[in-house]
Amino acid sequence: MSGRSREKVAFQGERGAFSQEAVRRLMGDKVEGLPCQRFEEVFELLKSKRADAAVIPIENTLAGSVHENYDLLLRFDFQIVGETKLRIVHNLIAPPGVGFKQIRRVYSHPVALNQCLDFLRRNPQMERIPFYDTAGSVKMIMEEKLPDAAAIASALSAEIYGARILRRSIEDDRQNFTRFFLLRHADWKPTRTPPAPRGWKTSIVFSTRDTPGALFRALSAFALRDLNLNKIESRPLRGKPWEYLFYLDFMGHIDEERCRNALNHLRELADMLRILGCYPAAY
Amino acid sequence: MSGRSREKVAFQGERGAFSQEAVRRLMGDKVEGLPCQRFEEVFELLKSKRADAAVIPIENTLAGSVHENYDLLLRFDFQIVGETKLRIVHNLIAPPGVGFKQIRRVYSHPVALNQCLDFLRRNPQMERIPFYDTAGSVKMIMEEKLPDAAAIASALSAEIYGARILRRSIEDDRQNFTRFFLLRHADWKPTRTPPAPRGWKTSIVFSTRDTPGALFRALSAFALRDLNLNKIESRPLRGKPWEYLFYLDFMGHIDEERCRNALNHLRELADMLRILGCYPAAY
Repeated sequence: MSGRSREKVAFQGERGAFSQEAVRRLMGDKVEGLPCQRFEEVFELLKSKRADAAVIPIENTLAGSVHENYDLLLRFDFQIVGETKLRIVHNLIAPPGVGFKQIRRVYSHPVALNQCLDFLRRNPQMERIPFYDTAGSVKMIMEEKLPDAAAIASALSAEIYGARILRRSIEDDRQNFTRFFLLRHADWKPTRTPPAPRGWKTSIVFSTRDTPGALFRALSAFALRDLNLNKIESRPLRGKPWEYLFYLDFMGHIDEERCRNALNHLRELADMLRILGCYPAAY
Repeated sequence: MSGRSREKVAFQGERGAFSQEAVRRLMGDKVEGLPCQRFEEVFELLKSKRADAAVIPIENTLAGSVHENYDLLLRFDFQIVGETKLRIVHNLIAPPGVGFKQIRRVYSHPVALNQCLDFLRRNPQMERIPFYDTAGSVKMIMEEKLPDAAAIASALSAEIYGARILRRSIEDDRQNFTRFFLLRHADWKPTRTPPAPRGWKTSIVFSTRDTPGALFRALSAFALRDLNLNKIESRPLRGKPWEYLFYLDFMGHIDEERCRNALNHLRELADMLRILGCYPAAY
């Protein structure tokens, strides 16, 4: 990339989606977002170099890991170079000039509507209407200039489409966080090492046979070197019901000797091992 | 329960939802389904004994674990007494008399619409319209008698609402399975021990401090006794960022000596340990 042209970042969702908030956190304001309909398109854009980077959600505190994106990480050969954790804040958003008392219809993705049930029950005059996308519902009410409609979406989507936030943070559960990864090509190198005030984190995927103690032996590679794990998750391998994939994150940089030793040790024990990336820890 | 009155089973979704297919698999046809809007309502119905049992989804091969239901399992004190794995098959469903060529609109939950993108791209004459619920969209097209509309939903929902399946299995990915738990009150006892041709499985939740090797030591309780793990997943404890919950399933019955010993050993190492249930393994 030349320093003059803006970097392009692919993400899934309409402009203003929570993924675009994550783009802003990970890359700042001076990039061009490329909205995609499907996660696979996000990966394809990065592969074909139409995008310089990609931002994908990888897990949510209420809904769990996004296995589809772990699958795509294995199918494509990119590196994770950053992570961020975003609190999912839902807002009631209307066109300028439309007041709270005028609202009779609320559009949003059903998942977002279901995360604001307490608010919607306190306001039974508002009919809930499912829509494809949270940010897309803001775009629609602005384009259609509906005089009695609001949307439930991110603050960023109000900003992008010129709408107004009538009520902030109307979600039932404030412990709703989504973790996002920033992806780059496998051969990408930063111009300088980024700061890592909370240390470095490494994400790997490996598989073992389904024998008693296989995971225990695999984890010994980390425990024997006092490496701390942040995440571990098993998943049956598709079409191979007796083999397992494990997603594992640990604190440490792959250039540290004890990390290199742990990974070499794990390579002896695992059938497959892929290092997905090494990046400054977000928390 | 007397043998005469039908048992009541709570599940989330409209009648004909995939959860109701799981109810049928786990309890047969002779039970009364109690559809609920939210998972929490499912648990509340069981707690208040308005329901005799409950069926909840716990993980999906594409979307991951349903953390909300793990949270509810910890908040309420029930036991898991069965599991099943259901392949998620989406079908194009229309009212009787409406043929494939007449279809111009397709209603379903956005997640289901997004899992049938290949089919919908091959049929661009069909407009996709998001709806609250897969089974609910079948109910709606039958009630409204729409002459050009179809729904995407389970085969069971076509049966329940008297609709016809025009195309079977139109989903993009056939590796889409959801695992369900059957829940009963903590003091419930089966009248006789059920068959377990694939052995018994036990599900537990425990927490450890975030110290290097804590999980490794915890797993030694199982590895040293040759107990095989089926699932392990870590999750940061809410409000306690340095402590972790682990969900773990292993093969074995809690009445076996080596299982009892393993759980006693784990109790020494863990800050918290809850046995969620012991049930015939489904796979």
